[in-house]
Amino acid sequence: MLLNLRRFIKPIHYLLISFPLAVLGSWLGWSPIFNFIVACLGLIPLAELIGEATEALAVLTGPKIGGLLNATLGNAAELIITIVAIRAGLLELVKASITGSILGNLLLVMGASVLLGGLKNGRQRFSREHASTNATMLVLAIVALSVPSLLNHTLEGNALPFQITENISLGVAGVMIVLYGLGLFYSLRVSDSPLTHGAAPSEGAHWSPRTAAIVLALATGAVVWLSEILVHNVEEVIAVFKLSEFFLGIILIPIIGNVAEHLVAVEVAIKDHMDLSIEIALGSSLQIALFVAPVLAFVSLSFGHPLNLVFNQFELLALIAAVLVSALVSSDGETNWLEGAQLLAVYLILGVTFFFLPA
Amino acid sequence: MLLNLRRFIKPIHYLLISFPLAVLGSWLGWSPIFNFIVACLGLIPLAELIGEATEALAVLTGPKIGGLLNATLGNAAELIITIVAIRAGLLELVKASITGSILGNLLLVMGASVLLGGLKNGRQRFSREHASTNATMLVLAIVALSVPSLLNHTLEGNALPFQITENISLGVAGVMIVLYGLGLFYSLRVSDSPLTHGAAPSEGAHWSPRTAAIVLALATGAVVWLSEILVHNVEEVIAVFKLSEFFLGIILIPIIGNVAEHLVAVEVAIKDHMDLSIEIALGSSLQIALFVAPVLAFVSLSFGHPLNLVFNQFELLALIAAVLVSALVSSDGETNWLEGAQLLAVYLILGVTFFFLPA
Amino acid sequence: MLLNLRRFIKPIHYLLISFPLAVLGSWLGWSPIFNFIVACLGLIPLAELIGEATEALAVLTGPKIGGLLNATLGNAAELIITIVAIRAGLLELVKASITGSILGNLLLVMGASVLLGGLKNGRQRFSREHASTNATMLVLAIVALSVPSLLNHTLEGNALPFQITENISLGVAGVMIVLYGLGLFYSLRVSDSPLTHGAAPSEGAHWSPRTAAIVLALATGAVVWLSEILVHNVEEVIAVFKLSEFFLGIILIPIIGNVAEHLVAVEVAIKDHMDLSIEIALGSSLQIALFVAPVLAFVSLSFGHPLNLVFNQFELLALIAAVLVSALVSSDGETNWLEGAQLLAVYLILGVTFFFLPA
Repeated sequence: MLLNLRRFIKPIHYLLISFPLAVLGSWLGWSPIFNFIVACLGLIPLAELIGEATEALAVLTGPKIGGLLNATLGNAAELIITIVAIRAGLLELVKASITGSILGNLLLVMGASVLLGGLKNGRQRFSREHASTNATMLVLAIVALSVPSLLNHTLEGNALPFQITENISLGVAGVMIVLYGLGLFYSLRVSDSPLTHGAAPSEGAHWSPRTAAIVLALATGAVVWLSEILVHNVEEVIAVFKLSEFFLGIILIPIIGNVAEHLVAVEVAIKDHMDLSIEIALGSSLQIALFVAPVLAFVSLSFGHPLNLVFNQFELLALIAAVLVSALVSSDGETNWLEGAQLLAVYLILGVTFFFLPA
Repeated sequence: MLLNLRRFIKPIHYLLISFPLAVLGSWLGWSPIFNFIVACLGLIPLAELIGEATEALAVLTGPKIGGLLNATLGNAAELIITIVAIRAGLLELVKASITGSILGNLLLVMGASVLLGGLKNGRQRFSREHASTNATMLVLAIVALSVPSLLNHTLEGNALPFQITENISLGVAGVMIVLYGLGLFYSLRVSDSPLTHGAAPSEGAHWSPRTAAIVLALATGAVVWLSEILVHNVEEVIAVFKLSEFFLGIILIPIIGNVAEHLVAVEVAIKDHMDLSIEIALGSSLQIALFVAPVLAFVSLSFGHPLNLVFNQFELLALIAAVLVSALVSSDGETNWLEGAQLLAVYLILGVTFFFLPA
Repeated sequence: MLLNLRRFIKPIHYLLISFPLAVLGSWLGWSPIFNFIVACLGLIPLAELIGEATEALAVLTGPKIGGLLNATLGNAAELIITIVAIRAGLLELVKASITGSILGNLLLVMGASVLLGGLKNGRQRFSREHASTNATMLVLAIVALSVPSLLNHTLEGNALPFQITENISLGVAGVMIVLYGLGLFYSLRVSDSPLTHGAAPSEGAHWSPRTAAIVLALATGAVVWLSEILVHNVEEVIAVFKLSEFFLGIILIPIIGNVAEHLVAVEVAIKDHMDLSIEIALGSSLQIALFVAPVLAFVSLSFGHPLNLVFNQFELLALIAAVLVSALVSSDGETNWLEGAQLLAVYLILGVTFFFLPA
């Protein structure tokens, strides 16, 4: 019943066929819905290829530079999609996708890993100490990240002038990036930092550095291209399916950008490497909070669409809940399938609710 | 100084005299205040009898079916009272009593257990691992339970249409019941699930299955009867004593429905079975959140008084605080009387505050 | 690079020169800004002298009475400053300084201790059990303390009449002081209570009881005097530097009143006595929440400026975040410098934000 999920990753590559379809479709003016869907499908294998190329380079450059590569390129696909979306002014979608990535990692991926791993292996144990350190870092990151939003919501009536909100956001983003840098520095000396978590013991992908670099460049270019197509057809999709920009951002974008990594986390859980699985989920969330979100805040300045870090109250509450829950689950050093089902239930409930949120 | 509290349970049976008094009073049209008070007093021993009969049946049917019986009938008295109250349209009272039951278990019962147990036995230790798993389940349950409320409060101005709130509530309730079912399934394989916590090592009540079934049937019928009397006199009590429906629901109803169980939890703590005491408090809270609340949401549909799961902000904050506090207290695997005093202090402060809340 | 910070404490005494300057300045009507600054500088060594005299007396009177002395005089300087501020009607500043003291202890002091201690000694371990008990007490205290505020904020539209808010505040304050008394009683029997945490193994200050009593009396008198000067010039400082009363209260006052204690906590962390360092930070926060805040609520009544315990939403959220974060950091029983940097980052972000808060 429980399959080797890695086998699914290679078939994912067949989805590359979506790339020419999306390019063709957008060129020939096919249905926006069709173009949107093939762009989404095409992004999945490309994100996976970027990950694989990064990993191959990381192996070749040794643990230190490799750690840095993983740390900065680990969420490359998502970073590109969101940057393209910012340029198109879809700020609501971008902020939602930051929240959605963290929720997805902490609830969907950790939930599926704990559930399937627990069904296969019974009660699973892992290093409490280690997971607890990561969870603490994540709570600190989320507290820092939520300060601008809290400030904004508690003032309501006499809201801050736009410029002050923006300044506070940039200040927070600056502190975050410094913390991220310190975290990387820490990880160069301590082998087990969550920011440079080792990839799953790799079975394939013994590429030469040249091959890896070429794959990396081509896949990155293709991601940019598909992101443009995706972003330009978003309005149409929202209108036709009556989805909100918020729902697309919080559920769809994060899943597209991370499917491959998610599958790896679940797979290693099934193989009873629960330490690695928890680390992927927590580490990826940390990268989003400490690196992707602040980078987007700064990058957005150059596009004339400044992205502040003010999340709506519901995003905020979902983030805090997800972080607390995953901190609790991981802090006791063991998991069972029931906990996995509960994490998934929370994700499901949030998803249903987001679906009903008025635009 | 510290008495054998179980000795108090049998004298509780003398309160059965309240049952005929309440029936008579309501028939002859005595003072509504009198009828309300004797109905409350009468419910206490009846709830205890239902518990005892369930336990006797559970012993006879073996651990698996017994676990299921305990899991579903453990809060039977409270379930009946609240269903009768829903039929009478007292939705505010019912929602408050859901919150109040959880607060009562986590703060009042756990507080009294930790305080008295600690005074008698000094620092008390218990299985950290086990309590921590239960606490995690409880946090997850409360997070899921609070989603509809959070959604509603964060939207304020542009509130959701009634129907959507109702749909989300039912969706959440459905997910909860599935989780509860999964939890029961889990407990049939793992002996130590909180959902089927074993009763205290029973000293009396070696009833035949026939006796147990008859007691169960009669006590249940009597609970329905007294609940009707209680509910029909609530308005009068509120008017005369200037209490709010909310205060009655959050403090009084939960205490009436659970006095006997509360006494057992405190008693086993005094006997230094802290594991069982913590388990009763956490397990009972889990049953309310995962089973009683969702069942009420569905049952209410058939009475034309749909009960959504939108709690007011103060209930929500009290719930979250109580769950966090009890998770912290139980997660370090040991307690002292000072922690008990603090839990009681939080309950006291909340109680005083609820008393002053405007209707 | 890492110095013996205690050496800085004696030089702090040179700041005593500020005392006559402030007195002279306020007498001769020098610039209010100058008087304010020298009063602030003068308070630093006086707070330290009160601490040292208390410690000397505590050594002489034995652990029990000594514990009580430490528990009640540990925050004497801050208590005096805030009482003088209440008399002058600066309620906003006083409430902010209560919050700021707790934030300062949990984020600034603990952050600096963990950062510098970690840089010097690598990963530092300490008694998980002990820190966890303290953290639980702190969470309970903050939950209790925040009830009046939560009540007030959730009612918004139909706010409570002033008198009811005041009654609830006094009720909560009464419960807090009873809890504090119970905690002291507990600490007389258990040696390791946080409320009477032993001072750092003292190197100097072998004063006679007579000397200690005289120093205590003189320093206390001088603190009252300087507090008057500080308070009377606050308005001017706010006007000139365009700071808010809130910012002064939440950042400046707590630092002035606790510099010496802060330095001790950091110093012992550098000497790898992480247990004591964490205990100072948590214990001092507990004293503020359970003793200083309630005492101020009662004392304020006699000045005709009743101080309720309703904190604004941002103070509340900062408090809850700080307590959760420090509970997490301390509950895993070990720290590294990265965690210290993160705690400081949260303090920095909150500080920047408080700076921008409109008055």
